[in-house]
Amino acid sequence: MKVGFVGLGAMGRPMAENLLRAGFPVAVWARRAQSAAPLEAAGAVLRPTPAALAADVDVVISMVTGSGDVEALVLGGEGLLAGLRPGAVHVDMSTIAPGDARELAAEYARHGVEFLDAPVSGGTVGAEAGNLAIMIGGDEGAIERVRPALEAMGAKIRRIGPSGAGQVAKACNQMVFVSAVQACAEALNLAAASGVDVGRVREALLGGSAWSKALDDWGGRMVSRDFAPGIEARLHHKDFGILMNEAMSTGVPLPIAAQVWQQLNALVASGFGRDDIASLLRVLEQGRGR
Amino acid sequence: MKVGFVGLGAMGRPMAENLLRAGFPVAVWARRAQSAAPLEAAGAVLRPTPAALAADVDVVISMVTGSGDVEALVLGGEGLLAGLRPGAVHVDMSTIAPGDARELAAEYARHGVEFLDAPVSGGTVGAEAGNLAIMIGGDEGAIERVRPALEAMGAKIRRIGPSGAGQVAKACNQMVFVSAVQACAEALNLAAASGVDVGRVREALLGGSAWSKALDDWGGRMVSRDFAPGIEARLHHKDFGILMNEAMSTGVPLPIAAQVWQQLNALVASGFGRDDIASLLRVLEQGRGR
Repeated sequence: MKVGFVGLGAMGRPMAENLLRAGFPVAVWARRAQSAAPLEAAGAVLRPTPAALAADVDVVISMVTGSGDVEALVLGGEGLLAGLRPGAVHVDMSTIAPGDARELAAEYARHGVEFLDAPVSGGTVGAEAGNLAIMIGGDEGAIERVRPALEAMGAKIRRIGPSGAGQVAKACNQMVFVSAVQACAEALNLAAASGVDVGRVREALLGGSAWSKALDDWGGRMVSRDFAPGIEARLHHKDFGILMNEAMSTGVPLPIAAQVWQQLNALVASGFGRDDIASLLRVLEQGRGR
Repeated sequence: MKVGFVGLGAMGRPMAENLLRAGFPVAVWARRAQSAAPLEAAGAVLRPTPAALAADVDVVISMVTGSGDVEALVLGGEGLLAGLRPGAVHVDMSTIAPGDARELAAEYARHGVEFLDAPVSGGTVGAEAGNLAIMIGGDEGAIERVRPALEAMGAKIRRIGPSGAGQVAKACNQMVFVSAVQACAEALNLAAASGVDVGRVREALLGGSAWSKALDDWGGRMVSRDFAPGIEARLHHKDFGILMNEAMSTGVPLPIAAQVWQQLNALVASGFGRDDIASLLRVLEQGRGR
């Protein structure tokens, strides 16, 4: 199976490297050709346009930022749609709006190409380790055809439902994850203001019903005041924009997610957008002049 | 070590039973004597007043509802303070305000009695299994003296700091835990409204950064629509009252905890106060007329 890959950022690069390492022939396209150099050095072939990339592969995998990036990649004059052959599959692993994923799937279907929305959870650590959780919306047969490539990048590969369902699951994931990080920030900030050792509070909470990966990992970053990113917080901010649009269009109340969204706005306004999401603690601390 | 126990509710009864099972002589006092009958049948001795209970034990353990209950138990005319001897220890495992715990400790100190605030996490399941997480504020020597009794009830026994610190940790625990349950409710409600299988979403989220005990356990209850309590949600509602008073007195912003508090108000107003906290999902669903 020949694989095309687009989107060689903090997530995409290690994912593409894992595909090469698993033995797949990988072609890449990059808006700035120099960003593909490390992949070329590792054995990937560089193509001049998305259409040219698409023309000789069985599956294209994309890992870009938002809906606009995916649409430009697919629908532009030299876009993937102009190159992908009937029977090919485009697996978009970016985090975009469920409705946009459904529209892209419908557009591709008119050309006999399958589109899967397959966003991930696990961050740069999971991308590097090749054990991302992959949440997929789309046709089961198409998923089975590309599964070997997905298995080179992820450990928990699950079909959630039809087109868009992967993105709904991802929106849910971000809501649950970032809300948990925010709750940890509030708790540890309260503990500190009460004169209580925050490390001991975190450890005590890990022993009971408050246990979460957010408390274990991101709570640990807060205790050690390590705000270097993993994923940059501005991307979570973007994801919450998607989430709030979903709330608007479905009429579903998201009371704490909406509050977290505002804290993310404050985070970005405070200049922490390129730091880790653990910076939600620093947003709360600002009034205390730490 | 002779143990006195007060508060034979859903949590206290199995905790007292575990003390008996571990071989401690246990005396009990209960406002309504008949509620002590199962403990008497298991070998406990019934005392007529808290003072009488306190007079011949080395440690009194209390597991009642709120600050008012603990204060009445300690300071009333026939209260514990009238009976406890210098060198005795009162371990209060109820969830009360940190400031109230500090005041009780100061009052006891004037009589040469140690007071430990030692609230727990783990619910009725943890109480029955004897593996509660116990978060303690107070004197280290006193903790060591009563440790064998604590070990009959809990598995993770941690001193957080001086008097009140256990209650601060517990307030943090409730905030992180119930916020996580609320986030799960919002996510699963959004997934359902989007026509996506909620069980698959929960499973996918358990594979990545959104993993929490709340999602695993309480998310599971939501998926299977099991709202029978563990702990009744009205008690979490009470705990959030404590939390919000702490926010007021320390001047610490708790943006999502405040929102969760309002959802708990809505839960109680909706008649779900004696059901499980998983009922936060039903609060969100009400507009959809499920």
